[in-house]
Amino acid sequence: MKIGFLGPKATFTDIAARSLFPNETAVAYPTIPACFDALNENEIELAVVPLENALEGSVNITLDYLIHEVDFPIIGELTAPIRQHFMVHPDHVKEWDKTEAVYSHSHAIAQCHKFLHKELKGIPCESTTSTAAAAQYVKENPDLRAGAIANELAAEVYGLAIVKEDIHDFDFNHTKFIVLSSKELSINEDRKEFSGNKTTVMVTLPADRSGALHQVLSAFAWRNLNLTKIESRPMKTGLGNYFFIIDVDMKQDDVLIPGAVAELEALGCSVKILGSYPYFQLRNKNTKVLQD
Amino acid sequence: MKIGFLGPKATFTDIAARSLFPNETAVAYPTIPACFDALNENEIELAVVPLENALEGSVNITLDYLIHEVDFPIIGELTAPIRQHFMVHPDHVKEWDKTEAVYSHSHAIAQCHKFLHKELKGIPCESTTSTAAAAQYVKENPDLRAGAIANELAAEVYGLAIVKEDIHDFDFNHTKFIVLSSKELSINEDRKEFSGNKTTVMVTLPADRSGALHQVLSAFAWRNLNLTKIESRPMKTGLGNYFFIIDVDMKQDDVLIPGAVAELEALGCSVKILGSYPYFQLRNKNTKVLQD
Repeated sequence: MKIGFLGPKATFTDIAARSLFPNETAVAYPTIPACFDALNENEIELAVVPLENALEGSVNITLDYLIHEVDFPIIGELTAPIRQHFMVHPDHVKEWDKTEAVYSHSHAIAQCHKFLHKELKGIPCESTTSTAAAAQYVKENPDLRAGAIANELAAEVYGLAIVKEDIHDFDFNHTKFIVLSSKELSINEDRKEFSGNKTTVMVTLPADRSGALHQVLSAFAWRNLNLTKIESRPMKTGLGNYFFIIDVDMKQDDVLIPGAVAELEALGCSVKILGSYPYFQLRNKNTKVLQD
Repeated sequence: MKIGFLGPKATFTDIAARSLFPNETAVAYPTIPACFDALNENEIELAVVPLENALEGSVNITLDYLIHEVDFPIIGELTAPIRQHFMVHPDHVKEWDKTEAVYSHSHAIAQCHKFLHKELKGIPCESTTSTAAAAQYVKENPDLRAGAIANELAAEVYGLAIVKEDIHDFDFNHTKFIVLSSKELSINEDRKEFSGNKTTVMVTLPADRSGALHQVLSAFAWRNLNLTKIESRPMKTGLGNYFFIIDVDMKQDDVLIPGAVAELEALGCSVKILGSYPYFQLRNKNTKVLQD
């Protein structure tokens, strides 16, 4: 089976795709829309793209395509910790603190602001197009005495040594990835990362009036349906019109969710189920630190 | 007065800062945390950073800093359309469709997926660290026969000619920027972009239980307080704990908002007002297209 993911190699999306589908062929695509096109054109059976809090892809593009362009269901979700490490060329491990330049994606540089301020104050930071590109550049230019901020997969793929791990400012920073399928495949729930099932619903309100959202939530609340996420998004028809993405913490059933949907439609809302699927959580694992 | 913004020059944040404060000195900072530091250290009086849907900065970093690190109030918001244009070196305007490479930020390349597929199919796209960097590169390398995807300010600043305007896939794509101040300044509402006042409230739920959010919204609904945005965000203490960012469509008053806040606190929620401020909308303006 072929899995498409938002590349390049060694992105966080790559880590997510490898964890969920370790034995399949993974194909990197340069953008999120390119992933969706590949799914449309049957180049791949599954696509793994970031949905939240990603460094590499704009989350808004994923949502825009899900809502306006792509009619494939979400078949799975993976939450993975975002861990940034400081890595240097293997020749420079001992004198890593004499680094003369730091390379990384600008968002990763921003995420590690405190580390850079404390440990490498005044050292110039150069932006690259991805954290993986930074790792590759540092490996290919040992004379530069440069360091990269990137993930553990990038260290492994490009052969750098991690000298400081977990240098990001905020712990518990996670990214969510979703898996889309053109073939109505399902992901095996029988694995240690399995955490439960959820159903994602998109609700468009009939008018922008006070209390309408409250009414929508009533349809879920009186059925004791637990909502784990709610997000308002502007409609593409102009400012001021909103729809809501709601995660219900259960698998789609025959009674409760259809009942809530019918009630919302009777109130004049338009409702679309984006998928009912298992979600998985990748735990932190210790990386190997090569510092002496 | 000195205004800090997320740079480099000619980003969308630069456009936002110039529109709100045309006569002040604007200083570019490489990351969002660097903007906040400058505010902390009194290098600048105001900071303009993206809050939603940005190309250049991670929105999550702005929210993380607002919630965990920075205690300055939001004093204003500006919504600006995201418009991407295709631009080439002035020497190549006539034969722009013979472009041999396209340079831009990867998110902008993704946002213009359909244009690239239709008009420049098969032409290689190269990622740059910002749309402004792409424009600069294309200007400095006229021999390359390259084009850049960037905004109108970048075309102006770097001296490129826009040959196709509004090439982004989705119309009505907007970015929100917020203005923070360390000096309790206020922004003059007497300007044509003024659209109203809002109050942003952060609510942390006492426990992750079904219907809790519904109860929170009741406190606003029965007071007829209109909510224009609601977003759940994971707490930094681990997965599964959420707080909510809620925009109430009015200026903070002495009765209704304090009443709702008191009620929420009585229910065991923790509540923080992130700011009560005017919001502004930048309209589309026509760019000059140089195509013959």
